[in-house]
Amino acid sequence: MTRIEDLPTPALVLDAARLEANLATMAKAHPGAALRPHVKAHKCTALARRQAAQGHRSFCAATIREIEGMAEAGLGDDLLLANEVLDATRLGAVAATGARVTVAVDSDETIAAAAKGGVGEVLIDVNVGLPRCGCAPDDAGRLAERARAAGLVVRGVMGYEGHVVGNPDRAAREAGCRASMEQLVAAHADVGGEVISAGGTGTWDCNPWANEIQAGSYALMDTAYATLDLPFEQAFFVLSTVVSVAPAGAGYAIGDAGLKAFGMDHGNPALPGGRVLFCSDEHVTFVPGRAEDDTAPSPIDWELGAKPAVGDRIRLVPAHVDPTLAYHDRLYVADGEEIVDEWAIDLRGWTAAD
Amino acid sequence: MTRIEDLPTPALVLDAARLEANLATMAKAHPGAALRPHVKAHKCTALARRQAAQGHRSFCAATIREIEGMAEAGLGDDLLLANEVLDATRLGAVAATGARVTVAVDSDETIAAAAKGGVGEVLIDVNVGLPRCGCAPDDAGRLAERARAAGLVVRGVMGYEGHVVGNPDRAAREAGCRASMEQLVAAHADVGGEVISAGGTGTWDCNPWANEIQAGSYALMDTAYATLDLPFEQAFFVLSTVVSVAPAGAGYAIGDAGLKAFGMDHGNPALPGGRVLFCSDEHVTFVPGRAEDDTAPSPIDWELGAKPAVGDRIRLVPAHVDPTLAYHDRLYVADGEEIVDEWAIDLRGWTAAD
Repeated sequence: MTRIEDLPTPALVLDAARLEANLATMAKAHPGAALRPHVKAHKCTALARRQAAQGHRSFCAATIREIEGMAEAGLGDDLLLANEVLDATRLGAVAATGARVTVAVDSDETIAAAAKGGVGEVLIDVNVGLPRCGCAPDDAGRLAERARAAGLVVRGVMGYEGHVVGNPDRAAREAGCRASMEQLVAAHADVGGEVISAGGTGTWDCNPWANEIQAGSYALMDTAYATLDLPFEQAFFVLSTVVSVAPAGAGYAIGDAGLKAFGMDHGNPALPGGRVLFCSDEHVTFVPGRAEDDTAPSPIDWELGAKPAVGDRIRLVPAHVDPTLAYHDRLYVADGEEIVDEWAIDLRGWTAAD
Repeated sequence: MTRIEDLPTPALVLDAARLEANLATMAKAHPGAALRPHVKAHKCTALARRQAAQGHRSFCAATIREIEGMAEAGLGDDLLLANEVLDATRLGAVAATGARVTVAVDSDETIAAAAKGGVGEVLIDVNVGLPRCGCAPDDAGRLAERARAAGLVVRGVMGYEGHVVGNPDRAAREAGCRASMEQLVAAHADVGGEVISAGGTGTWDCNPWANEIQAGSYALMDTAYATLDLPFEQAFFVLSTVVSVAPAGAGYAIGDAGLKAFGMDHGNPALPGGRVLFCSDEHVTFVPGRAEDDTAPSPIDWELGAKPAVGDRIRLVPAHVDPTLAYHDRLYVADGEEIVDEWAIDLRGWTAAD
């Protein structure tokens, strides 16, 4: 029997009970097709299978590789590439195997690519305020017509309110979501179709305009989303071994997990009971002790001791889940302290597995 | 014949001529064993082979997996794990195949681990100012005795002046390097052995105290090291496709490379001739146009046009090479605009390939 303390480090460890609680909480609010789980957050078909076990059979993805992998895993009932592509050939090949594949389009060029690549169904991607993909709301109807003229089925619209999902002020988040969704609903009136796809973990309970929510981070969580007071628990951490303790008096110690084990765009990982000073490629330099004004409980049922020693294991909570998982090739699944399974993070990269 | 413009995106593209120029410049200054190239920077045995072709047969690494992969690739003449480990079993297994394996130690525990794991040779890792691994300089002699008593061969010392290698003020960099190396040389007098291993790309030409330089970034470079006015050229970029252009007047456009294609700890990638506004998981939002005071030539012989269109290819220069390569599984090797080879980034991850 392998226990967490026996794992080689660095290692991604998943708390199975917390994952299942998160999935159940979301499935209760958005059952079945009302949730379209976003696999970009975890890139793991085994985890997607747990989402499917909660009743969700439609998924969204950010890369062609994710779509391919989900179809290969038998999870291809309704796959949405919630992203634009200029070459849809590989998507068409997935559709030709019998999986249902829909792709987002926001321009004449991406419509032409979908048609040429053999993808039969599209959503019109509408810009609802985030400076990223999406057509102008008042251009959505024209694009839908153009897509239909190209022989495509237009299933509806999508629009991601990504500029508001992380706002810790709930009233502002709700107001921002409403403003975005009013634009999306107006565009939908011009486009038609069944689907209004939007939302994310941050707007999971304040977006009644969308009829499917594209949430991903809720399954595993991270310190950025933890600031929003959501009912989802931190369900994974990075296990690291203390490989060195500073000469007496210096006070810091070093763990064997660094820049290649954590997505760093939201900053350093958190260390419950201690503070991360900085990360190097394969190291984290930290000091024990909380800041004086920090009385929050640890998010992961573990806290650093006062005197870390060489050989101790520490548990770090990433600031951003998606780019963290993309660095790792497996998730160790823990039931309490016991490792009960190992899941491949099998949707990484962009090219076909070869 | 595949050209850069034909590659699926995002893609890491290596300029073969620039790589070879960088390798030759370094090999001229530090021929043969005077350079111990650090493979953590590229995690690619094919690239290490190019370094070997320049005459370097000793390498250093930051992970056990890198050591294993280098030995498997036939590059195991003299491998140094320039890092501490508490379980050296896998390193001992590599040594048992006939490769020469040395590991850094900085404590009683890491010495015991080396002996127990079957690694016969060590360097005493000395802290020379960077708050990371390494014993106190005046403890190095004691640790060397202890290692010899444990049956280990002590080859000498290592100490990384990582807190000074990135200082853009050359005089301060030189002074900091000297201060660090004086500590290392003093520790070496207590330790004995042939090796004084230190240095990096930033101190490649101002560290005469070390008899081998552990440089890695010089081969490929990044925007952080580019601020130091070194003679090494930017030899790789991330190719991305423009998948969306904002509605008229907004001025921005979006490429298909984001947080999972770039190590972000040193900030956004650079876009010659344009400016990156922000990265999302699989997107980069950018605007064309240089800042008014920016008259520097492009570091990669390419520059963004004034009006990017959907389908255009753009070339982004990462801020930090090491954690960027760790996200990718291959490097496309370009001779001018033509792709002439594809190298696996085969030293990624931490566990044995399985």
